Formats: sequence, structure tokens, C-alpha cells
Amino acid sequence: MYIGIDVGGTNLKAGLVDETGHILDTERTPLRFTTAEDFAGTLAGLAGTLLSRAGLRASDIVRAGIGIPGAVCGGDILYTCNIPLRDVPLERLFRAHLDIPVRMENDANCAAVGEWLCGAGRGTRNFMVVTLGTGVGGGFILDGRLYAGGGMVGEVGHMVVEQGGALCGCGRRGCWEAYASATGLIRMTYEAMEAHPESLLHAVAAERGGVEGRTAFDAAQRGDAAALELCHTYVVYLAAGVTNLVNILQPEAVAVGGGVAGAPEPLLMEPLRQIVERECYPRHTGKIPRILRAELGNDAGMIGAALLDRAI
Amino acid sequence: MYIGIDVGGTNLKAGLVDETGHILDTERTPLRFTTAEDFAGTLAGLAGTLLSRAGLRASDIVRAGIGIPGAVCGGDILYTCNIPLRDVPLERLFRAHLDIPVRMENDANCAAVGEWLCGAGRGTRNFMVVTLGTGVGGGFILDGRLYAGGGMVGEVGHMVVEQGGALCGCGRRGCWEAYASATGLIRMTYEAMEAHPESLLHAVAAERGGVEGRTAFDAAQRGDAAALELCHTYVVYLAAGVTNLVNILQPEAVAVGGGVAGAPEPLLMEPLRQIVERECYPRHTGKIPRILRAELGNDAGMIGAALLDRAI
Repeated sequence: MYIGIDVGGTNLKAGLVDETGHILDTERTPLRFTTAEDFAGTLAGLAGTLLSRAGLRASDIVRAGIGIPGAVCGGDILYTCNIPLRDVPLERLFRAHLDIPVRMENDANCAAVGEWLCGAGRGTRNFMVVTLGTGVGGGFILDGRLYAGGGMVGEVGHMVVEQGGALCGCGRRGCWEAYASATGLIRMTYEAMEAHPESLLHAVAAERGGVEGRTAFDAAQRGDAAALELCHTYVVYLAAGVTNLVNILQPEAVAVGGGVAGAPEPLLMEPLRQIVERECYPRHTGKIPRILRAELGNDAGMIGAALLDRAI
Repeated sequence: MYIGIDVGGTNLKAGLVDETGHILDTERTPLRFTTAEDFAGTLAGLAGTLLSRAGLRASDIVRAGIGIPGAVCGGDILYTCNIPLRDVPLERLFRAHLDIPVRMENDANCAAVGEWLCGAGRGTRNFMVVTLGTGVGGGFILDGRLYAGGGMVGEVGHMVVEQGGALCGCGRRGCWEAYASATGLIRMTYEAMEAHPESLLHAVAAERGGVEGRTAFDAAQRGDAAALELCHTYVVYLAAGVTNLVNILQPEAVAVGGGVAGAPEPLLMEPLRQIVERECYPRHTGKIPRILRAELGNDAGMIGAALLDRAI
């Protein structure tokens, strides 16, 4: 039996996961960060709750995997984006509370492992996951193993696709994330609303209490011209980055996950596939990667964290 | 003893290479392509010449490695860019002439292996080579092995860095290759000459019988303002792609090779390093990759082809 822990910016979630990647039980709590010691204690507490509910002892658990939104090295957190954790020996702090073997990895890497073993990437040797959320994340399975490099691999969102373009939180201009993330889509939705006062985008946003990532897709489904153009622009940017990654690493399949990936197939995945197939370099050998929707949703990271051993 | 063969668009070159990557003898001939059978015979002939000059028999050679400008799969050429070879069983055709074990790989991958084992990448586990020539090529050593994926990996030149930008030979617009290759630099040099009739670029080009990749650097070294601006623009584009690759794969070192890499250090490598260090994502963990000049020049591919066994 395994435990997978997903450290999010607002919630901490732990799952009891079996050898095949099935989640048997989950436990969650909001993140209320005080100190690294308390943080480790909270994570161990979640795991402990799962153990006691299942009537298991620590020795019944092969390993706990922890997905961290940042960079890790062995049992240490080097850096996280949204939680004040820097150079924290998390494995040691966790095991002071609950003595089970721990493995840590970047959360996007965990999601890639989850999708590879139990989702869209089953049966591939070279696979990547691209996650479209607040930012754009990525994780790579290369030659049948997670490629984790120096602990900060897969920052695919910080690939410039438009030299001198929109300012990104990372300091560069024109990063893919500034266009292909939900945040980028929302920014472009506001721009389209300003340019098109007649657009249905205004009514759709008002109905739902504000502009969201889905606003553009909802208005486009109702046939709004400005929204259809906006969705097209979004997919062109999304496809630019996916095609770049395909040309660089030539995976057998790319899975697209995150909130935006829930958009209607004819507005997102279908045009995305068409552009990638038309533009990618591997078309010369007929080995065009499959462009798939991720299958495991928010559970990918937890399942992947639990089963990290099988990808390393 | 090993044999490394480098298949170029205009020349075929073979080398007798020892276990440490030293080249003991070389033999070359212009490419005059007629049929795949003749082509294989020519390659075997080059190897045979090296054997007889060294007084060796076929059984003294552990393996011959062949670097191909295109995609390979096992002993077959799937596709090449500039030679009409498609779905050619080259290993079989070669061994009909000279029966020694053969391994084939993409030429940029061979160069990456060469630089990794014997050049700028010695001692790293995660390393990449970027080659600035007629096009822009790339090869990756990841987790201590060549990452060859589906035979068409490392087409880093066909990463869009300027959405809707200059048309690339691959059909996309704004590919890195359209800016960072020698070809791209020459195009930008013509543009700068047209915009600046007073520039020294005109005199430098006239002295050398035409515009070359080095024209911009030569004029900049003489203090020409338009040339200095052009070199800066070139480095900004070069750095955009290198930073993208660093953010995606976070290697320990990136080696820059090819003709353009011979430009004066203060005009190319120094500003390149400064931009990558300032913009790359791994700066958050202090693990900034080293940006190095490739060391082996035109021999990297031949040495890497010979020693492919050690990278797979």
C-alpha cells in the first residue's frame, strides 16, 4: 500500500493508493502555513488519519510520495513558488512524526507519472503532460522514466513563444504561460470584451459573476463571433507551445490537463490536434504524437506521488 | 578500436577513433549521391581505407557509428533532409561490403555524445549541445544517456520564438532557426545593410566577397553602430531559445557549437551567458546551467558516432 500527498497552494490532500493506482481513501485539509515543522506535522497527520481509518500500521506502507509545487532535491525542498519553504529537510521532519519511507518530487512531475502509469500515457515510453491552470506546467517521461533533472525541470510555461510579448510573472516577456494558462486566457478575454462591446462575452461573464477561463468557450458555444475568434487565438498559442515541445522531445503522446482542458472538444482539442499535426516536425517520418486529454483530473498528482517508485 | 562516420550534406568523413575518443586517422570524400547501395558502398570504402592504412582487420573494430542528417530507427534511415534517402536499410547495405557491427544515430545526437564524452560536457549527467550552422540543431544527454526518442528528437531549431515571425523552411513562422542560424543571421545582416547605408557592414561584406555569418561580428569589432545593434539582436534571439531549453530540461551545461559559435567571446558568449543567467527559471534555486562553447568543432559528430555505445 502507498500514500500519495498533493501539496497545493490552498489545500493539502493525501490518498491511500494501492499498487494499481486505485485511490482507496483520501483526507484533506486547508493549507495554513506557520512553520516548516508544523507543515511536516500536518502532512504526517493526514497520512496517519488514512492509516488509522484503514486499520494499517506504518510498516504496511511501502512509501509515501509527496508532490511539491516547486523544486526538490532528494528529501529536501529547495524552493516553492507560493509557500515560504526554502531549503527545508521535509523528509526528515515528516519521518519524525511518522516513520515511513518518503519520496518527494515536483507536483507536475507527479502528475506526469500518474497519467503515464494510470491515465492517458499508459503503454508509452516517451510521454509528456502539459497542465493548463493558473500557470502552465509540464512533466516528462523519457525512455520509460521520469526525467527530473536538477529539480526544476519542465518549466514549459516559461518558454518564450512571442519575443517581446506579454509580461510574465517570471520576468521574461512573451512566455507561453502568459497566453496558454487560464490566467492568460482570462486576460485575453478582457481584451476581447473591450474590443467588442457587442459580444456575448459580457452577458456570459455577468451570468457567472465574472470572467473565468470558461467564459470564452461558453460564449463561443453560443455562436458569438468575438468569442470564437478568441478561442481560435488561444488554441493557436496553445498549439505553438505543444508543437515546440513535440519538436524538441518527440514524445509518443502529449496529455493536456488542468482546468482549461475541460473546454468543449471541437473548440480546444480538435483544432489543437489539427495544428500540431500540420506543423510538427515528426510529420516527416509519419510519427506524429497523439494529442490527448489527461484522464485523471486532480487525482493525477496524488496517484503519481504514491507510485513514484515505478517511474525512477 | 572504433570507426566514426559523419554524413554531411556535401562531404562524407570517416575516422579511426580509439577508446578515449582520440582520432588516429581520417578519410573523406565528396558526397556524389546516386543510389542507396552506392552510398553504403562509399561509406564502407572509407572505413576499409582506414582499416588497411592502419593494418587492421574488420574484427579489430568494435563498432562503426554513422551520424545521419535526419531520422534513423535501428539500422534504417527513415528520412534525411538533404540527401534522397528514405526508408533505407543502411546497416544491412553497409555490412554487405564490410561486416562490422554498425550503430546509426542522428548527426546532432552524435555531436552531443562527442561533446559529452570528450568535450564541453565531460562529467555532466544532463547536457545539451546547440549547433548554429545553416540550421539550428540540438542533442540531449539526459540522466547520463543520449535521449533519442522516436528518431527525430532535438529539432530545437523548429521551436517558435516569435509567433507569426519570419517564415521557416519547415513551414512554421517564427522558428528559432529563422533567427539564430547562420542563415538567419545573414538575412538579418542584409536587412541591417538596407536600413543603414552608412554602415561598415557594406565594406566588410565587399572585402570578403559577400555577406557571411561573420560579417556582422567583423563590422561590430571595428565599432560599427549598426553591426553592434545587429549582433545584440542576434544574441537576444539566441538567448531566447537557449533559455527556453534551459527552462524545459534544466541541463547542467549547454554547449554552443557550429560556425557562428566562433564569433568573438565579448559579442556572443558573454552577452548570451548574461541573458540566460538573468532570465532562466533555475536561477530560483541557484542551479544556473553553464553556457559553454563546444570544444570539438567539426570532429564532435565523428567522435560521438564512434563512441555511441557509451551513451546508450
